[in-house]
This record gives sequence, C-alpha cells and structure tokens, in this order.
Amino acid sequence: MGNAIGKLEWLIPDGYYPEIDRGGVYVSHEAVCVLNTGDKDANIDITLYFEDRDPIKGFSALCKAERTNHIRMDKIISESGLRVPRGVPYAMMVVSDVPVVVQYSRLDTSQVEMSFMGLIAY
Amino acid sequence: MGNAIGKLEWLIPDGYYPEIDRGGVYVSHEAVCVLNTGDKDANIDITLYFEDRDPIKGFSALCKAERTNHIRMDKIISESGLRVPRGVPYAMMVVSDVPVVVQYSRLDTSQVEMSFMGLIAY
Amino acid sequence: MGNAIGKLEWLIPDGYYPEIDRGGVYVSHEAVCVLNTGDKDANIDITLYFEDRDPIKGFSALCKAERTNHIRMDKIISESGLRVPRGVPYAMMVVSDVPVVVQYSRLDTSQVEMSFMGLIAY
Amino acid sequence: MGNAIGKLEWLIPDGYYPEIDRGGVYVSHEAVCVLNTGDKDANIDITLYFEDRDPIKGFSALCKAERTNHIRMDKIISESGLRVPRGVPYAMMVVSDVPVVVQYSRLDTSQVEMSFMGLIAY
Repeated sequence: MGNAIGKLEWLIPDGYYPEIDRGGVYVSHEAVCVLNTGDKDANIDITLYFEDRDPIKGFSALCKAERTNHIRMDKIISESGLRVPRGVPYAMMVVSDVPVVVQYSRLDTSQVEMSFMGLIAY
Repeated sequence: MGNAIGKLEWLIPDGYYPEIDRGGVYVSHEAVCVLNTGDKDANIDITLYFEDRDPIKGFSALCKAERTNHIRMDKIISESGLRVPRGVPYAMMVVSDVPVVVQYSRLDTSQVEMSFMGLIAY
Repeated sequence: MGNAIGKLEWLIPDGYYPEIDRGGVYVSHEAVCVLNTGDKDANIDITLYFEDRDPIKGFSALCKAERTNHIRMDKIISESGLRVPRGVPYAMMVVSDVPVVVQYSRLDTSQVEMSFMGLIAY
Repeated sequence: MGNAIGKLEWLIPDGYYPEIDRGGVYVSHEAVCVLNTGDKDANIDITLYFEDRDPIKGFSALCKAERTNHIRMDKIISESGLRVPRGVPYAMMVVSDVPVVVQYSRLDTSQVEMSFMGLIAY
C-alpha cells in the first residue's frame, strides 16, 4: 500500500465521440480509465485538443486512493459547462497530481454492430 | 533459457465483465495472459480495484517456467470464495514473484456481434 | 504550455488499407493520429515500407502547435502524386521535427460489420 | 538510412488461432508484423509457449533491410514441419538478430461478424 504506480501525464491522440448510436446493450462512448494504487486521492484534469481550434481546459475528475475511475467522456462537463463535441476528431492530455495509470477505451455502436478499441495511453 | 523477461508489476485500468452473453462460439470474458520465459515458476497475485469500495485481494494463479497461462477472469475464484463481479467497472494490479509479461484481452458478446480488445498492460 | 511531450520517431509495423468498403456510416480507413502539445508547429513526414519493393517517401502533413491532426491515410497524397496502395501489407515510419505523440487506428468495413484496431505507435 | 530502430526481443502473451472460420472476405488469422528500418536483413526466430507442454522452437522468417514482413501465423511451418495448433491458448517470443519493431494483430471470424485485436508487442 502507499506506493502509487504510474506517472502524472498521459496523452491520447485519437479521441472520437460518434454522432450516432444504434440501440442495443451499449451506447457509443469513450472512457478515460484511471487506476490509482496509492494512498492519496488523485485530482485529474483533462485538456481537449482539436484540429482547428484552441484547446479546451477545465474537465476535471477525482480518482480516490486505491480506487479506479472509468471517466465517461460522453458524460463529463467542464467547469464552464462544455461537453465533448460529437463527430469531431480530437485528442486528450490527462494530468494527475499523483502517479496513476491511464487507459483509453472506445466503444462505437454507429453501425448495427459494435466495435472496441483499447490501449494504454502514452 | 533461464532468463526471465518482463517485470513484476502490471496494471490494467479498464476491466469489465459484461452481464450478458449472447450465444455463439464464444462467451464474454476477460483474460490476463501471462508469459513466463524464465526457468522458475511464477506465483501470480491479482488485486481488483473498484470505483466505490475497497480493493479485493486474494486472486492467485500459477504460471510455470517456460509456460503461458491465459487466466480467465470469469472463472477465477479468490481464496475467500469471491468471483469478479459482472457489470461493474474495475481495474487490476497483477503481481508476480519472477519477471513475466502480461497482456489483457477482452471479448464482449453482449450484443449479437462480438468485439475484441487487447493490450499489453502497463 | 510550450513543453512538447513525446518523441520524434514513431513506428507502425501493421498497416493495411482494405480493398473493399461495405456501405454504412464509415468507410474503411487508417489514421495516423498526431498530438502536438508544444508551442511550435510539427512538420510530419511519413515513409511507407513494403514486403517486396523499396520504401516510398514523400508523404507529409502539418500538426500545428497545440493541435491534433488525425491524418487519414486513405486521403493523403505524396509529393510525387502517389497514394497508399490498397490490399497490400505495409508499415510506416512517422518522423516529426518537434516531439509529438502518435497513435495508429484502423477501421475495417470489408465485411458487413466493422472492426477497430487502435494502438500507440512504438 | 542504415539506422535500425527497435529491439531484438519481443513478447506476445496472448496468441490464439481459432478453430472456426466463417466465410467472408477474411479468414481467421494472426500476424506477427515486423518492421526493419535498418540496412541489414533481419533473421527472425519465433518460439511458441503453451499452458501444458514444452515450448516449440524452429519457426523462422526473414525481414529484409528496409522492408516489412507480416508473418502469417496460420501459414508458417517450423523446420520440423509443425504448424501453430488451433483452438489452444499460446504465447510467442520473437527474436531478431538486428533491431526491429514487432506488432501483433489478430482477426477472428469465428462468428458471423469479425473482430480485430492489434498491439505493439512488449
């Protein structure tokens, strides 16, 4: 216990929140999955980068000590009331104040079938 | 022979065991795939982390020398008789007493189609 | 701001641009997703490697400061007018003049259903 | 040119060659995708690890200088005439005599739909 594994900055170049959901068990969504193995709570800040406009800051979340938080990017709201735009290529920088490990996962149900993508962030 | 490649601790932030299986060739499952290239058996301990409750310890497995073990998380039972809960976001820490390499793979058959996710753990 | 995270060279061994698209929301495509967190624009050069012919150079793109660019490999044209060939295994080296992070993503709609692959490049 | 990027040893814990193919554009297969950016040919040796039997050595392939080789594991034959067994969990160690980069990709068409998995090896 007490030893937090991971690092403070994590980068995710390929973010995409589809405009379309086909019914079924799941809806299209992305998750920034944080694992905090240490004994101090992690304050998480997420910055969104775009192809043709300035970055958006101010998306924050908490991952308590010895907990995981699967942050749903389709549900998160910034401090100024913004949501992740749909149908637009974007990227993310995830910054924590204590070491954590970050995985990015996407589920797309734009077509009848679904498809997964999962990877440890850089 | 004899030289074990890898490391002792592996983190997997995005674990999820779906509540639903649709028939077909496969059932929904996750696997913690361990490769032990060394000449000593690896004792594996897995801790589960959750969003809103304390970690669960006591899931263990063996990966013999020069063997692989694709640990099925839908089948593993902890020393106190617990199973991985379904439909709940969780995370994993995998600890070995000799160097190993760990990959996480998930197959989801919640909808009619199936989908894969696969990644080397951190 | 100003601190560019990442590195200059990124390798992607498994490139493949399918010959077939089935209709639907998406067409089969690959994307080289670049994230530039620094304050200098990144000039990106992509070299294609094949199984049985010489590498092709001369695919270039720009990823501006504090921007992402999801470079669509089905749309990019080299300085000598070449496109990525379809139905042929290939690989990529991505070189930037400032540090960036690169993710490779593929969407295949060759069959009626679609499937994703996503990974941080090496 | 001439500078080979990568390393000599690559590990892939989760190998699986399904027993079933449903027709369609693709057949179920795994590929060990090698990228050799250097100016010397790479001699590749693959060892298979299993859950309950000794490793199998003697699968070899060539990846020429400045070439890629997407080694199809459903087609490769060892020097003693063995093939990768179907329906059995296994793992792989890929060893090269010059630095290369290795990605593992799997396409599964066991059910009507297909699914991808792709990752840089460890």
